[in-house]
Formats: sequence, structure tokens, C-alpha cells
Amino acid sequence: MTILVYDLECMDGRRPSPFCWRTKYALAHKGLAFEARPVGFGDIQSLYGGAYKTVPIIEDDGRHVGDSWAIADYLDSTYPDTPKLFGTPTERALCRYIEMTLFTTIAPHLLSSYVKDIHDHALEKDRAYFRESREKRLGRTLEEVCAGRESRVEQAREGLQSIRLTLAQGQPFISGEHPGYADYMVAGFLLWVASVATLPLLRADDSLLPWFERVRDLYGGLGRTTTLNALAA
Amino acid sequence: MTILVYDLECMDGRRPSPFCWRTKYALAHKGLAFEARPVGFGDIQSLYGGAYKTVPIIEDDGRHVGDSWAIADYLDSTYPDTPKLFGTPTERALCRYIEMTLFTTIAPHLLSSYVKDIHDHALEKDRAYFRESREKRLGRTLEEVCAGRESRVEQAREGLQSIRLTLAQGQPFISGEHPGYADYMVAGFLLWVASVATLPLLRADDSLLPWFERVRDLYGGLGRTTTLNALAA
Repeated sequence: MTILVYDLECMDGRRPSPFCWRTKYALAHKGLAFEARPVGFGDIQSLYGGAYKTVPIIEDDGRHVGDSWAIADYLDSTYPDTPKLFGTPTERALCRYIEMTLFTTIAPHLLSSYVKDIHDHALEKDRAYFRESREKRLGRTLEEVCAGRESRVEQAREGLQSIRLTLAQGQPFISGEHPGYADYMVAGFLLWVASVATLPLLRADDSLLPWFERVRDLYGGLGRTTTLNALAA
Repeated sequence: MTILVYDLECMDGRRPSPFCWRTKYALAHKGLAFEARPVGFGDIQSLYGGAYKTVPIIEDDGRHVGDSWAIADYLDSTYPDTPKLFGTPTERALCRYIEMTLFTTIAPHLLSSYVKDIHDHALEKDRAYFRESREKRLGRTLEEVCAGRESRVEQAREGLQSIRLTLAQGQPFISGEHPGYADYMVAGFLLWVASVATLPLLRADDSLLPWFERVRDLYGGLGRTTTLNALAA
């Protein structure tokens, strides 16, 4: 049975959502067949009677589940004989904490640097909705939010230093010898940026890049099934 | 057999080392009896023929091991029938990454805010050595390093936001339902600060404090076996 994933769509085959990426990687990690069905920003609320405000949403054998964490838990409990996303409750708790470190140290800088780029790469039919909803949330125009973004891109780049230091100790993945949910969360943020960035996030010699390419190669090149701009320059 | 831990000593029963704290918590987590033997900054190099530059060092049945990570691995492999510090290799890898997030977002602000306080609380015989070695490493006097520390204390306080957000989701410990190595690492940093701080790190209503008190209560009140200044005000 193929699991359906609603996957945020932007122009030219771009699939920017960091949360959809972690769900797609989660499905691939577990060896579950899935179809990533594109959906624009403005169409999410038309799904399942408006039950969800965000993607990913999965549909599996008639059931639908939203929110990347709820989906991960659903997959681990529904498919216990496939590789676990969280091998222990502690692994899950530590991944929650790691997500919070990403939310506090990286994500705000990325959002305030690239939200205008997201708008500009959205499907044309979604742009007015995207601008209105995001400007309302952020309290400023997208252009105002992104003004002077160079210093915040620098801060986001510095915010990734903990990952460089982790990998420098010799572990090929953040999760250790094998890739895991922490890798998918971080790679999801980088795939998000690379999907839309008109200002590259990383320098060309960034030691994160070999890890990022390793994650993109996983599961038959899952991280290559999208159009990207340059992540590094 | 009681395991000996060399534990950094400052004035009036203070035991500030964040790395010694995680080792003491690691031993307690595993239910292993230990004796924390005080050692001043200047005396570490007199131990075991100068084999170590830092504490903790443990001595167990004639073997000695330094470095908190090597000690944790030693304890898990030597005492496999006691509770694991790392239930899976992934848990260990994620804790390594979490340590790197602490090293990059919190520790530098703490060091540059409290290194003079550490000096002032060191044993009198250790102060000249401490000042000389740290000023050489930092390239400035301790007073210069700590000048204007208020803004950096604020940054360290903000750097702890990911922990507040994690606990706000309802997990009593960073490691989930039960305390684990990530909790011991973070609590070790706070015990370090509280051992010497003449400027409180946290506000009195900080939502981290109930967690911190929970960790101090563990294992018969291990985190209360030291003299502390005010961590919050």
C-alpha cells in the first residue's frame, strides 16, 4: 500500500518544506513506499475539510495524519517491523530538544533572510495568499523582513557550527554511524533554503557540504528529487 | 569496589567543574559507589605522572581513565548490567551533537562572564596558576575578558531557550521521562555557574529552575553536595 504525502510545491518542481522533507525521509528510512503529491500554499486548507493548516499530511489506508512528529510516531507504531525512527524514547526526546535548538538558533535567521525568496518561488497562484498571511504574522512587509539579510545569513551559518564540530569528530551522520531523524531535520532546513535562496547560505568550502550530499544521496537520491538553487558559493 | 573520582575543588566546598559533574551523575545513574576526591587546579598535573591536564579522572580497580566521554564509555562497557548512559549508539551520537550546541551557544558566553568569578573562588594556592594559564589561553586579563558581561549573561540566558521549549512540551527531563546524559551535561554547566557566580545567570521566574531542582534532587540529592551562590535572582 503506497502512502500518500501532501508535499508543498513551489515553481519548477521545487519542494521547499523542511517539515515535508523530514516526513519523506522518515518514510524512506522505514522502507515504506510513498507518493509525494504536490500541493500549493493556498490549497492546504482545502484538504480534508480544512482539518490542517500545514503540510505534511499523510494518508495511509484511509487514515490521515498531520504534523511531522505525529506522523513519525504514527509510522513507528503502525509499522513496528520496519527500521525505527526513534529506537528508544530517549532518542525521540533528544531529537525534540535538537529541534528546539534549530528553532532558536537557525530557523529565525533563515526565515528572516529567505521569506521573500520563498514568496518569489511560490506558484504564481499562491503568492498573494503567501504574502498576506506571512506579512500579517510577521507584522512587516516581506521586503522589510529581509532587508539587511547578509548579517543574518552569517548568523545562520554560524548557528550550524555545532554540526560541523559534531561531524569533525568522525561520525558520518549527526545520528552517528547511520543517518537518523536528526539528520533529516537539519537536512530539511538546508533543502528548504536551497529550494529558494537567491543568496547562498554556505561558503563553497563549508565542511557541512559532504554530509549534506551524503544525506541527499540516501534512499536512491531522495534529496535530489527537487529543483535547488545554489546552497553554497 | 568504590570508584575514585578526582573532582575539581574551589573554596568552601565548591565543586565547580561541569565535566566532573557529568561524571558524578554518570556514576550515580549507574548506581556505582564512588568517592569524589577534591583536587585543586594546580594539582591535576601531579596525578598519574602528569598524564592528564583536566579532571575528571576516575580510578577503578587500579585502572585510571580521564575525559568525561571516555569515562562514560568505560563505565557503560565495564558495567553492562547497570543502567546504560547511552541506550543506543544513536543516543550517544545525539548527546555529542547536543554537547556541541552547548559549546557553541552557551559555554563561550558563560566563560567570558564568569572566568574571573572562578578565579576569585579558586583555592588561594591555585589562583596565580589559574590566572596565568587562563590569561595566556584567552589572550587578555581576566578582568578584560569579563568586562561588560551583562550582555553576555543575557545571551547565555537566551541560549538556554531551547531547553525551556523542550520542557514546555511536557517532558520532565531533556532526555524524556527519565533523566539522562543530556540532563547531566546541561545541569553541569549550571552547577558550574552557580558555584562561583557573583552575577546570577537566571531570572527568579525562569522555567528552567524546576527542572534544575529536579536534577539536583536526583540520586539522594547529588546536586546539593556543593556550595552554591545564587543561580537566579
